Amino acid sequence: MTSETPRTLQEVLERAPSVQELLYHNPTGARVYPVVPPEFTNWRDEQHAWRDTVCLFDLSYHMTDLFLRGPDAFALLRQLGINSFEGFQPGQAKQYVPVSPEGYVIGDVILFYLEDGTFQLVGRPSVHNWVQFHAATSGAAVSFERDEWSVTDPHKPRKTFRFQIQGPNAPMLLEKLLGGPPPDLPFFHFTRVSIAGKRVSLLHHGMSGVAGAEFFGDFADGPAVKAAILEAGKEFGIRHVGSRAYATNTLESGWIPNPLPAIYTSPALEAYRRWLPATAYEAIGSLGGSFVSPRIEDYYLTPWDLGYGRLIKFDHDFVGRAALERLKDQPHRKKVTLVWDPDEAARVISSLVTHPKGQRYKYFDLPLAQYATWMYDAVLNDAGEVVGFAMFTGFSSNEERVLSLATVRSEYAQEGTRLRVVWGEPNGGSRKPSVERHVQTEVWVTVGPAPYAEPARRYREQVARARRS
Amino acid sequence: MTSETPRTLQEVLERAPSVQELLYHNPTGARVYPVVPPEFTNWRDEQHAWRDTVCLFDLSYHMTDLFLRGPDAFALLRQLGINSFEGFQPGQAKQYVPVSPEGYVIGDVILFYLEDGTFQLVGRPSVHNWVQFHAATSGAAVSFERDEWSVTDPHKPRKTFRFQIQGPNAPMLLEKLLGGPPPDLPFFHFTRVSIAGKRVSLLHHGMSGVAGAEFFGDFADGPAVKAAILEAGKEFGIRHVGSRAYATNTLESGWIPNPLPAIYTSPALEAYRRWLPATAYEAIGSLGGSFVSPRIEDYYLTPWDLGYGRLIKFDHDFVGRAALERLKDQPHRKKVTLVWDPDEAARVISSLVTHPKGQRYKYFDLPLAQYATWMYDAVLNDAGEVVGFAMFTGFSSNEERVLSLATVRSEYAQEGTRLRVVWGEPNGGSRKPSVERHVQTEVWVTVGPAPYAEPARRYREQVARARRS
Repeated sequence: MTSETPRTLQEVLERAPSVQELLYHNPTGARVYPVVPPEFTNWRDEQHAWRDTVCLFDLSYHMTDLFLRGPDAFALLRQLGINSFEGFQPGQAKQYVPVSPEGYVIGDVILFYLEDGTFQLVGRPSVHNWVQFHAATSGAAVSFERDEWSVTDPHKPRKTFRFQIQGPNAPMLLEKLLGGPPPDLPFFHFTRVSIAGKRVSLLHHGMSGVAGAEFFGDFADGPAVKAAILEAGKEFGIRHVGSRAYATNTLESGWIPNPLPAIYTSPALEAYRRWLPATAYEAIGSLGGSFVSPRIEDYYLTPWDLGYGRLIKFDHDFVGRAALERLKDQPHRKKVTLVWDPDEAARVISSLVTHPKGQRYKYFDLPLAQYATWMYDAVLNDAGEVVGFAMFTGFSSNEERVLSLATVRSEYAQEGTRLRVVWGEPNGGSRKPSVERHVQTEVWVTVGPAPYAEPARRYREQVARARRS
Repeated sequence: MTSETPRTLQEVLERAPSVQELLYHNPTGARVYPVVPPEFTNWRDEQHAWRDTVCLFDLSYHMTDLFLRGPDAFALLRQLGINSFEGFQPGQAKQYVPVSPEGYVIGDVILFYLEDGTFQLVGRPSVHNWVQFHAATSGAAVSFERDEWSVTDPHKPRKTFRFQIQGPNAPMLLEKLLGGPPPDLPFFHFTRVSIAGKRVSLLHHGMSGVAGAEFFGDFADGPAVKAAILEAGKEFGIRHVGSRAYATNTLESGWIPNPLPAIYTSPALEAYRRWLPATAYEAIGSLGGSFVSPRIEDYYLTPWDLGYGRLIKFDHDFVGRAALERLKDQPHRKKVTLVWDPDEAARVISSLVTHPKGQRYKYFDLPLAQYATWMYDAVLNDAGEVVGFAMFTGFSSNEERVLSLATVRSEYAQEGTRLRVVWGEPNGGSRKPSVERHVQTEVWVTVGPAPYAEPARRYREQVARARRS
């Protein structure tokens, strides 16, 4: 028996024809980047700033934060993460990845170890939900506090401001802001500094591919800190990045932000699905793109598929460990960047003005062409078989190319391999309101590395070398 | 002598190398449509709604309102407008156009005659400023109250909500909302009705080209009225229009929203320029586009150039009357719609993905390609002479074409005439932050009527017939 209005994800699923049909037609459009204006100058030059000079990203609004506090917080997080917690200490952060009992990714967040017994999770909320469920139901001595993203209520003050400076001039700007050489911090370590008279945490971070810094602190101090950064950055050609350019920086640095949380079908997770409200990210998010399969499990991804194989450490017990041990020697997909042929990109983009309505290809919004929460566009080999998914597609003015972050079967992951992306949804498109009637087309692409941007690859190698030494 | 920081438009101009250089490099980007989200569904389908079903426009935020009250208000407005005030009564509205003493347009607004001695001006603020200056300095018995557009402070409540329903199903929706046949109102007359239990003014209006209605009333009643419209509109396929599609509706209905106010050079207006603050629309707005002349007067437009010749009535004395009487028998420009060749539009739009940065054409934002307050793109004849200006350019999915609202010399205004629009600014572009480095290109266009949309033309003829009868 189900109640009148579904209250939980499980109840939503029980009324749906199938999980895939539910999510494919859910009326949620592209992921929103709230509060920050679309452009401060123009999105082309804002992209150029992180490659050529220095830029300011404001990350204060589009992510959800979860604070975990208590003597059992460390153990709870360790028990849910594929990551090692050896040597993990206050003042460090990590990309934290939980998986389902079957070994499929639930999501990834940045996990900050703020102080003894206190952690902050930052990102899309599928990990927050999963961790909060365990905090609330396991009897562990853990309290939690959520700070939702700013879409529901853009006027509500957040708890934390979060800014990044990125680009070749970021080190000089940082030194100027600190009044001297910055502390010698390993990658993803943070410490306290003073900016504009405010106590600010400084994280060594290189999101857009070169040495950068993330500042975070009390939300009320944000305006003063931001003003100081922009003022000091003038001589280094700083640009404030709007929400249109912001979301594209990962096209160059290779992080796939939108795997479907693998929580819909596992019998072991029924209690979780009964705990998740009918308004949760997992219930209202939408699947989009050309890949359509009635088996929702076909959308699930392993840590290896997303480039997180290096994060798996069998040095502790965690949910999904046995499954990952079984999967580890099997073939995996590999994360790559698919580079659209320029004339193919032009054909898709200009179909708006050359074709009658209804006969155009799916509208390609610029600079980011996402139109659903979780995008899965089919990637085809010469035989027309689906060999992977293009999951994040947009235009990089720095690389002068349309790029798709993708995961493909390893035999198709060699640089230079020619593949096709199927652009647009079948049969005129889903019922998502972001989808106008359109026709599908196949687009030729070439496999490139992820990260695709040369500065990002170089920087990643530096970090890896520093960690080994 | 000038003070340290310019306080007035006149002081700003005195420090500028020239008016044109000042305005061409002013750091203001495209006109902003605040508060309303960019898209509710997607801008293509939102455009289709005003052609195929019915749409809801929310005009509550992007315009400035000026309330004028007092026994001299009528006479003051009449003295500043080219329009006739014969028979103008409470419950009527008109498109109100003041000109400079030299006969050039200062702007246009919708003027509502709310009740005896009380008027409301709605639109871009160049007319408000001009009227307010005279109200404040003429000694007339008039008080004024301004309600600024919502860009400066998006959270500040406005005084008036303003919604429109437009499209072929608008009459049915209106009848449903009113619970019976709507009052028999001539075009641009308004009366009081009740919606959702609120007292609402209903204006007969056809902005997107077919019979429509505008509702306005106490801002606090807006949410209830909007909810009632959207709920009642469901069965008629209503779509809520976001800010991206909103600004394009005039491409089809032929109103040019952005003439440069002709106030910078007239010696008679120096007192006005000393009264206008250095933060005024006229001081911070930007000129953009390929037409560049050191003579700012070359940007001024007569009422005939903008299609307002029919509004000029020499039945009263008004500022600029003598000049218009001299100009009336001279050749005028004519308002037209320039239809871009689809392959030319494709060439411009796709240069983003086919050309290296710096060598692309000016980025064509979709659906509206404006990047300055006042756009003046040169229109060329076969001999390469400038024969007019393209002033408002974007894409209509209904018409399946890129359209530019333009004013051209009358001998080039015949439908079917082939002309060229110069797209982009010379020498890599101005210093406006909205302008990335780019190259110019010439685009073939064909002259079409204004309004371009067939339903809009048909509706305009109906209104004209009704007025004659």
